[in-house]
Amino acid sequence: MSSLDTPYSFHVESADTATAARRGRIVTPHGEIPTPVFMPVGTAGSVKCLTFEQVSATGAKIILGNTYHLYLRPGHDLVARRGGLHRFESWDGALLTDSGGYQVFSLAHLNKLDEHGVAFQSHLDGSRHVFTPELSMEIQLALGADIVMAFDHCVAYGSDERATTEAVDRTHRWLKRCIDAFGPGGRTEREGWQRVLFGIVQGGVFPEQRTRAAEQLVELDLPGYAVGGLSVGEPNAQMYELTAHTVPLLPADKPRYLMGVGFPDDIVEGVRSGIDMFDCVLPTRMARKGTVLTPDGRLVIKNSSYAEDDRPIDDQCDCPVCARHSRAYIRHLFASRELLGQTLASIHNVHFYQSLMRGIREAITAGDFDSHGRRVIERWREGEKRRLDEAKKRPAGGR
Amino acid sequence: MSSLDTPYSFHVESADTATAARRGRIVTPHGEIPTPVFMPVGTAGSVKCLTFEQVSATGAKIILGNTYHLYLRPGHDLVARRGGLHRFESWDGALLTDSGGYQVFSLAHLNKLDEHGVAFQSHLDGSRHVFTPELSMEIQLALGADIVMAFDHCVAYGSDERATTEAVDRTHRWLKRCIDAFGPGGRTEREGWQRVLFGIVQGGVFPEQRTRAAEQLVELDLPGYAVGGLSVGEPNAQMYELTAHTVPLLPADKPRYLMGVGFPDDIVEGVRSGIDMFDCVLPTRMARKGTVLTPDGRLVIKNSSYAEDDRPIDDQCDCPVCARHSRAYIRHLFASRELLGQTLASIHNVHFYQSLMRGIREAITAGDFDSHGRRVIERWREGEKRRLDEAKKRPAGGR
Repeated sequence: MSSLDTPYSFHVESADTATAARRGRIVTPHGEIPTPVFMPVGTAGSVKCLTFEQVSATGAKIILGNTYHLYLRPGHDLVARRGGLHRFESWDGALLTDSGGYQVFSLAHLNKLDEHGVAFQSHLDGSRHVFTPELSMEIQLALGADIVMAFDHCVAYGSDERATTEAVDRTHRWLKRCIDAFGPGGRTEREGWQRVLFGIVQGGVFPEQRTRAAEQLVELDLPGYAVGGLSVGEPNAQMYELTAHTVPLLPADKPRYLMGVGFPDDIVEGVRSGIDMFDCVLPTRMARKGTVLTPDGRLVIKNSSYAEDDRPIDDQCDCPVCARHSRAYIRHLFASRELLGQTLASIHNVHFYQSLMRGIREAITAGDFDSHGRRVIERWREGEKRRLDEAKKRPAGGR
Repeated sequence: MSSLDTPYSFHVESADTATAARRGRIVTPHGEIPTPVFMPVGTAGSVKCLTFEQVSATGAKIILGNTYHLYLRPGHDLVARRGGLHRFESWDGALLTDSGGYQVFSLAHLNKLDEHGVAFQSHLDGSRHVFTPELSMEIQLALGADIVMAFDHCVAYGSDERATTEAVDRTHRWLKRCIDAFGPGGRTEREGWQRVLFGIVQGGVFPEQRTRAAEQLVELDLPGYAVGGLSVGEPNAQMYELTAHTVPLLPADKPRYLMGVGFPDDIVEGVRSGIDMFDCVLPTRMARKGTVLTPDGRLVIKNSSYAEDDRPIDDQCDCPVCARHSRAYIRHLFASRELLGQTLASIHNVHFYQSLMRGIREAITAGDFDSHGRRVIERWREGEKRRLDEAKKRPAGGR
């Protein structure tokens, strides 16, 4: 077990020779995290539909919390009075909070952006708020995450190079304010465990801007670096290229986090480029909408084609749902709007991602990641192609 | 563990001297059930919001399934092709199915009732169907329950004695058709385990009709007897009186089941009268609406008054939710419309009922049921009174 006195550290344990993939370990006061890691997203204090026993049982060692959501509801001060987010939601693993930067640009109604910060209206009730680098740090320190993310300026996909350049510069000025607000040594007086602050490389789709952003960041010698502003609408190939372009600019001895990514093939591509950390709402969001994931692509499990299918979602999966339940049963739950359907699909999908990462880590250790990764991608894409071909054959509107 | 070859039986293990309460054991091919028992309701193939691991962990040994719901969706034939409801939903404990009688009167749009059966329109899509005693047996045998309920005619609360008398007579004629359709020996050829058929005492609020119904039923020497048509709107005192009136008319060596009851005080009163089995949607339905149960009455946990309450729902409760989560956290989940709130409240409430029954059984064995039951009722009612008094003090519309 971990101790709250454990200092943060990161170690690369083995590096692939054929690719930039590496296997490592992030040590935090709330436990050790083998990397490459996928972090389930617990937006508003809950990995949606799962109990924390169920989250732990998937093997997840670190989850996310959202600054934007928790600031609005129930409020970071309320969470702090409960002893922080770990204690509030009863999660004893590691915790990373995003800065709220992405959400104010993607989710809230944006009123005004200037050097001071971002004025926005809540997507919940239209109430008016201003996020600044200082407030983002205050919220994240109050929530008590182990890994705190810098407050950044994300540009929308399609922004021109001038807007992107300005956002890179602003993100960097804001990062310096974040570092000041975060405090010396990354340890606050509020709670007795060390938190660390990661910087975020922006730069949109412009490799030169990515380079500039990465070089500015690395000068600050941070404990970890994220690649942000990807998976926002650009073609996959461009995301892979920009990731592969950016990662070599970052120090090898610090973890690299590709934010908001992604599908299994995206993750393998990220690992191939040297990414250590991923997060995405995809497994839980898809589950709630009735889609489950397998190595051979998605199953839209709510479809009537599964009504009499007695097989588990994936007969190779070792999750508790596949051990116990048939596709027919899960399909019935969705058709009957039983919430258990969403729960079972969520357990399976979160477990699926943890298995995916376990397989990747084992392949890196075995020196087999290159071919393992290619097989994972090939199987996934072939399955997805088959699914789309079959969907095309079905009459429109048919289920 | 049970064996599917185990024959059905019921044994009274100890009888209270001060009241009609008794402790017993129902043996089924799917396990043994200590009585008095509360059966969580799994309407449409799921005890709402709970995984079956979570249902088992509450200590529940028997759950309900609903003929009406499962006939409409996914269809009993589909369930039979999956190997029956046990296998379909993955429940290896005992299973009781109701007959659909109550639901066609309470939930569906009733079109026509005659000697043949009941014509109704589905509450889901308005489609037209006819339930007969024969079809109810066919559905329940296809579902493969351990305990099958007779198809009865429930009269609405407020029906006059003439309508009630007719319903009693019709229920009895229908019961004979149920027995014929159920088949000799209560064992079907479809699956290799014994099912038993329980009859239901109707008779509305008229003690003479209850007497007549019970006497007719007992002549048929059934393996178990239910008291139906109560908890449908009559005052509690009348429900207790009618139960106390009916139970002594039933044989002591067969289980007695009070259908659709109820709150903790109702259950204690039922046990006092000699009832062995209960079911009610109350724990799961209340949970989904943000209300949790304690020995001191309900907590409307979604209320803002719990926003900073760090106590568990009930500090004496040994459920996994109370071991881990605060009222503040669960309140936050409801305020944020996180489905986990419904799940946690459901786990707690189902566990609460299992604990209630465990306490009752232990008190009967210890010869202490009379005073134990009085204490349970007193605590519950005092807590409920306090809650209502406090709710009155709050400004209207306040949360």
